Amino acid sequence: MKIENISHVAIAVRDLEAQIAIYRDVLGLELVSLEQVDDQGVKAAMFQCGQVRIELLEPLGDDTPVGRFIEKRGEGIHHIAYRVQDLEGTLGELSERGLRLIDTAPRPGAHGAQIAFVHPKSTGGVLTEFCQEEPPPSA
Amino acid sequence: MKIENISHVAIAVRDLEAQIAIYRDVLGLELVSLEQVDDQGVKAAMFQCGQVRIELLEPLGDDTPVGRFIEKRGEGIHHIAYRVQDLEGTLGELSERGLRLIDTAPRPGAHGAQIAFVHPKSTGGVLTEFCQEEPPPSA
Repeated sequence: MKIENISHVAIAVRDLEAQIAIYRDVLGLELVSLEQVDDQGVKAAMFQCGQVRIELLEPLGDDTPVGRFIEKRGEGIHHIAYRVQDLEGTLGELSERGLRLIDTAPRPGAHGAQIAFVHPKSTGGVLTEFCQEEPPPSA
Repeated sequence: MKIENISHVAIAVRDLEAQIAIYRDVLGLELVSLEQVDDQGVKAAMFQCGQVRIELLEPLGDDTPVGRFIEKRGEGIHHIAYRVQDLEGTLGELSERGLRLIDTAPRPGAHGAQIAFVHPKSTGGVLTEFCQEEPPPSA
């Protein structure tokens, strides 16, 4: 396995519109997509920042993974996603090396990517995603 | 102001050696530096990941900013740092746009960088650093 880059850093927020006003209008990051991902129970705003994206996630309800995260920990960084070329092979290697996988097989994520999560207990308290996706637009 | 890239994502951990074993030996990230930063009360391990670094921070004691963070929230992502070319000008613009600054002027960080923090209340619960530094080694 080889981690190529960080794909994105995801931040759980209560009010997406209010935070878009900060990240786009105050910090000046480029908003590249805004979509609702019913499967994950979120509205998601993606900002490009060099090769990496910042993803703001607003839960669609309290009883969603991001809703429960905010309930428990408040707003803040939700996960880091690393980009790999061979997700299925990566999951096999991570499992062999003793990491605790949440997803033992790739599943579909946003933007046509294949994704899988590793349990935060394995990675210093950080919910960690691995994703296999198309190359990002050149910065 | 112009954010060029994410400089690093910092993760607060209890046991740096144990987490180095994960991030270097299991995830396969390249460990590029390991140092004690007395000024910030941490031991810090930096890993290169594409253009971005992952920074693991172990507090030197409970009564340090990172020690208090772990006490309150547990291990996990501590802050995101964005790279800018003109930190002093950036701080002026952010302040004009209503962001709450922790550091109103640049101060020295690790590796000869100049850094300043913005209050997490301004940025969706995320402690946010801006830094002006030398270009990273090419990935």
